[in-house]
Amino acid sequence: MPNPTAAMLTIGDEILSGRTRDSNMPHLARTLAAAGIDLREARTVPDDAAEIVAAVNALRARYDHVFTSGGIGPTHDDITADAIAAAFGVGIGVREDARAILATNYADPERELNEARLRMARIPDGATLIENPVSRAPGFTIGNVHVMAGVPAVFDAMVASLAPLLTGGRPLLSVSARAAHPEGILAGPLRALAEAHPSVSIGCYPFNQGGVFGANVVLRAQDEAALAAAEAGLAAMLGELGAGRA
Amino acid sequence: MPNPTAAMLTIGDEILSGRTRDSNMPHLARTLAAAGIDLREARTVPDDAAEIVAAVNALRARYDHVFTSGGIGPTHDDITADAIAAAFGVGIGVREDARAILATNYADPERELNEARLRMARIPDGATLIENPVSRAPGFTIGNVHVMAGVPAVFDAMVASLAPLLTGGRPLLSVSARAAHPEGILAGPLRALAEAHPSVSIGCYPFNQGGVFGANVVLRAQDEAALAAAEAGLAAMLGELGAGRA
Repeated sequence: MPNPTAAMLTIGDEILSGRTRDSNMPHLARTLAAAGIDLREARTVPDDAAEIVAAVNALRARYDHVFTSGGIGPTHDDITADAIAAAFGVGIGVREDARAILATNYADPERELNEARLRMARIPDGATLIENPVSRAPGFTIGNVHVMAGVPAVFDAMVASLAPLLTGGRPLLSVSARAAHPEGILAGPLRALAEAHPSVSIGCYPFNQGGVFGANVVLRAQDEAALAAAEAGLAAMLGELGAGRA
Repeated sequence: MPNPTAAMLTIGDEILSGRTRDSNMPHLARTLAAAGIDLREARTVPDDAAEIVAAVNALRARYDHVFTSGGIGPTHDDITADAIAAAFGVGIGVREDARAILATNYADPERELNEARLRMARIPDGATLIENPVSRAPGFTIGNVHVMAGVPAVFDAMVASLAPLLTGGRPLLSVSARAAHPEGILAGPLRALAEAHPSVSIGCYPFNQGGVFGANVVLRAQDEAALAAAEAGLAAMLGELGAGRA
C-alpha cells in the first residue's frame, strides 16, 4: 500500500517579503518522513483570504493531508481560521472548549481574555482542537486539513500533539555518502546505479568546500534491503572512481 | 500602475524530505521586494517531470514572472530543463553558445566536457541564457520563466545577472517597531491603525525572549507618505500603551 501523501501550506506576507525565513516546513518534512507520510508539495501564499481558500481547496482535494502554518493569532492580519471555514463552506464562531483553554491561560488579570484574544477561540464548525502546550491557544483539524500556528516553537509543539494521531506508512529510509569528486565525474556512474536500483531515489548535491568540488550522494527508499543493495553499489562505484583517479 | 507579480518554484526532493533547508526563496524575495516586483506565491515540488510541468504552467499563466531553482546540474536527477521544454511544448538540445561556455570552464583536461557535463548545455529552443559567473553552466529564460540553479551561491549569482534585465515597479518600503506588549494587548489598537491606513499592510509577529512576550510590528507600503503617516500612528499608539501599563 502506498504511503499517505501530504502538502504543506505556509501563510504569511512576512515569508514572501523575505523578512522571515521559514523553519516550519523543514521541521514538518522531517517529522513526516519519519512517520512514513510523503510530503509531496509545499506552498506559501500571502495573508489574503481568496488565496488561502484557493490553495487549501486545491491541496486538500489532491493529498491525504494538508498542514498549514501561520495566521491563527489574535491580530487583524490573522485570517486563516476564517479562510479555512470559507474553504469548507462551514460556519465559524467562539467555541466553549477553546474559550475555556484560553481562560485558563489568561487567568492572570494583567493578561485578560479580551476581544482580540477571544478571536483565537473561533473555530470552524466540525473541527477538532490540536493541543498547544506552549501558549495554550489551540490549532484545529477539519477534514484532512491541520491548521497550526506560525511561531516555530508553537508549530513544533502542535506537530508533536498531532503526529501520534496520524496513520503513517513506511518511513522513508536514507543513507548518504560524501564523494570527493565533482558532479560531472559522478553523473555517469550514478545514472547506471539509478537504473540498476529503480526503487531507490538517488540524489546528488554538489558542494565546494575550500576549493574542493565534491557532492553528497543521498539514497532514499522505503525498502531496507533495496536501500542496502544500492548502498553497496554506491560504495563499489566510489571505490572504482577513487582508484581510477589516484 | 500595479507592480509586476512573481512566483517562485523550488524543485527538489531534498527540500521536501527536510534534508536541505532552502535559502534561495528568502534571497529572491528580498531582491524582488527591492526591485518593486511582488512575490505572490512560492511552491516546492519534487524531482518529477509531470509535477514540474504542471506547476510551471499554472504559475506562468498567473504571474508576470516565474523563477525556478534546482535541477539543472549534470546528474540523472536533474530534469528541470527537459520539464521546462515540455511545459512550453518546444524542443531541447545542446546549444553551441552554452557548449562554448562549458568548454572554457572544462579546458582543464582533468575536468573534461564529458557526456554528463554536456547535459548542462541542453537548452530549450528559443531560450536566452542567464550568466553564471560562479561555475559557468548557464541558466536560461524562456517566455516569462527564469530557470536557475539550486546551489545557493550559483542561484544568487544568476539572480544578480538577471535582476538588471527585469522591469520593476515601486519598491516595497517597510519600517518595523519592537513592542514590549503581548499580541493580545496590541491587537485592538493595531486593528484601528490598519483601518485608518488602508494602503499600508500591517503585520504583527510575536516573540518570547527570556520570558518577555512582545511583538515586532511591521508596516509595509509602496507610498512613502502613507508609510510615514502609519509609522507616526504606530508611535503614538505604542506611547499610549506604554503609559497605560506603567
